[in-house]
Amino acid sequence: METQPYEPRFAARTQRIQASTIREILKLTQSPGFISFAGGLPAADLFPLERIAEATQHILRDQGAQALQYSTTEGYPPLRAWVAQRLPRTAPEQVQIVSGSQQGLDLIGKVLIDPGARVLVEAPTYLGALSAFNPYEPEYVSLPIDEEGLEPGALEAALQAGAARFLYVMPTFQNPSGRLMGLKRRQALVELARKYRVLIVEDDAYAELYFSGRPLPTLYALDQELGGGNVIYLSTASKTLAPGLRVAWVVGPGPVIQKITHAKQGADLHSPTLNQMLVYELVKEEAWYQGQIQRIRTTYQARCAWMLEALQRHMPKEVGWHTPQGGMFFWLTAPEGLDSLELLRRAVEEKTAFVPGQPFFADGSGKNTLRLSYSSASHEEIEEGIKRLGRAMKRMLVV
Amino acid sequence: METQPYEPRFAARTQRIQASTIREILKLTQSPGFISFAGGLPAADLFPLERIAEATQHILRDQGAQALQYSTTEGYPPLRAWVAQRLPRTAPEQVQIVSGSQQGLDLIGKVLIDPGARVLVEAPTYLGALSAFNPYEPEYVSLPIDEEGLEPGALEAALQAGAARFLYVMPTFQNPSGRLMGLKRRQALVELARKYRVLIVEDDAYAELYFSGRPLPTLYALDQELGGGNVIYLSTASKTLAPGLRVAWVVGPGPVIQKITHAKQGADLHSPTLNQMLVYELVKEEAWYQGQIQRIRTTYQARCAWMLEALQRHMPKEVGWHTPQGGMFFWLTAPEGLDSLELLRRAVEEKTAFVPGQPFFADGSGKNTLRLSYSSASHEEIEEGIKRLGRAMKRMLVV
Repeated sequence: METQPYEPRFAARTQRIQASTIREILKLTQSPGFISFAGGLPAADLFPLERIAEATQHILRDQGAQALQYSTTEGYPPLRAWVAQRLPRTAPEQVQIVSGSQQGLDLIGKVLIDPGARVLVEAPTYLGALSAFNPYEPEYVSLPIDEEGLEPGALEAALQAGAARFLYVMPTFQNPSGRLMGLKRRQALVELARKYRVLIVEDDAYAELYFSGRPLPTLYALDQELGGGNVIYLSTASKTLAPGLRVAWVVGPGPVIQKITHAKQGADLHSPTLNQMLVYELVKEEAWYQGQIQRIRTTYQARCAWMLEALQRHMPKEVGWHTPQGGMFFWLTAPEGLDSLELLRRAVEEKTAFVPGQPFFADGSGKNTLRLSYSSASHEEIEEGIKRLGRAMKRMLVV
Repeated sequence: METQPYEPRFAARTQRIQASTIREILKLTQSPGFISFAGGLPAADLFPLERIAEATQHILRDQGAQALQYSTTEGYPPLRAWVAQRLPRTAPEQVQIVSGSQQGLDLIGKVLIDPGARVLVEAPTYLGALSAFNPYEPEYVSLPIDEEGLEPGALEAALQAGAARFLYVMPTFQNPSGRLMGLKRRQALVELARKYRVLIVEDDAYAELYFSGRPLPTLYALDQELGGGNVIYLSTASKTLAPGLRVAWVVGPGPVIQKITHAKQGADLHSPTLNQMLVYELVKEEAWYQGQIQRIRTTYQARCAWMLEALQRHMPKEVGWHTPQGGMFFWLTAPEGLDSLELLRRAVEEKTAFVPGQPFFADGSGKNTLRLSYSSASHEEIEEGIKRLGRAMKRMLVV
């Protein structure tokens, strides 16, 4: 029936819109008895179900027609105001509500990336950012990270080598590496952005999920102190309330946000009205919202500690990792030469799974790295799953 | 504070992502006493509020964790199956759930349009389709329509003149013209698509809203009878349930849908899980759903009839219109030389509004045309609003 060749009709950019082989392997992880650390899934047992049910009833009863009708592209005004008010010297007009940070990244790509333009990313960087930017055909420049995240010297060298559209960076509990960038580096980054007049796209999805200590200031806040205008900031309700609602926000210089708004109008008119109102109903109760975030922090901290213990117990000594201070991920480095895609195949045989690290590298490196998520697993699952992974790893290392 | 020039940093495609001047004028229409026929808003008094409230409670109670968690890019499986089962010889794998038809159009543009590629559209065509396609920088070819919609001879001439990526067409109660394409023309269109191996993108948003008679077969159905593979079909829950939920679907040849799925993954991961489950809960009760659609039909038919009477009573005889057999819009043609953007300014002074026709034409023609929506207005509002519009029109024609 579908005998016509469609490939020749696709736009050239689709060369860079590809299926992920990993996703195919991970489809196997749905079977019973499987323990997966692959998905970056927030803990479903912490979704505020009752609160969401109540808020939905209130909204539908009191503002039902509004909640179900078309609404403005910019987003639900009270939610925009709430976002603005939590950020230094930010007007609601600088806030665009989007359908998940992923959509924010897509719109940023649409508005800022010409084919062949240079985009600076960390190595590793968030895989979803690469798939958002890819269709706009950038040329990536990968910048190395260490224990403290992106190294400013490498950034400056890259900026000296040529202009870039922007630097995409996740300074707090980076997905996948879990790294937390220190204050000095944050300051250096913002100063470099000003000096070289390059925009920073700061993805702050995991910032609320710190286990202890004070949160560090965002790049956005540091730039605002210096006058602002260089940082496009992304945050989301996905990690604190529920990802299935798809509500996030992009904040930045007025002219950039305006352009993003126009792009969003063509992309999907607006994010679902009901979902935006629902998120606002929840976050506006500040005390409750802080309690909700605290419950998530405490839970993830415990799960992270269990995973650390299990790794210490079951991993061969050749394997290293970064112990996160927040967020959802452990990042493991196996000896050079170990292919984590092959490891995944063996882990799946052992009925456990993770995400191989390579797709997080725009330059194709990182074959010996892997990401483990602890956010959704119980103590028992972590112990048993890491044991299985350790077995698979040992089999790989013996060969 | 924002003293840096951002324009030079924007991607070249943003030249075609522009604000609409009309939108600025229409922001005035929120003031009290205003009667607007501008927005293409479904009647909020017909939103099934109670049903939606009940269904949401059921979902959150029985499947809450699933409804609020990340889900697959393709969409909620039961909803995909429901869509597939209502279409001839269609597998659920050929269905991609999207966040409103608008997103479907954006993804189609992303996957099929190279800069400079020819895209065939009706004149007029749906404005939102142009804003979805524009960032991908197509070269539009505008095809004239008459009382029966697109004329196949014009299509064949355009196809002989050169290859095109696709024809975008809304054969049933077109937005903005309200035209219903007859069966012969539908058949001719599908045959031409096969002969010239050009894809048709069929936007079927308004098809359920017929006032009487039997619905005509879709281009998709006609193409399926001939073996299929040439039509990408879009439909939506926005016009039958509620647009604020942003749930719609794209159906088509497997390889095209697969590419659209990959593009959607980069664009926003997936549509909100809760919203998809909610739409499924409502549509799966077939008897109720048919009743809901029937209520909308009956209401819109009455509103359409009131508007027809009011137009007959208040419009100067120089003004012509198409009387729709379904959908949400009247399409008016004023004498050549009357600028409907100027008319809008005068109408706003009279506290009424509409959408000028020109933005619906890819070739910039249609200055003397305008679109009126009757879907959301009461009998009194229609009578009074059209009277005001008639006054503004007469003032324009006298000058």
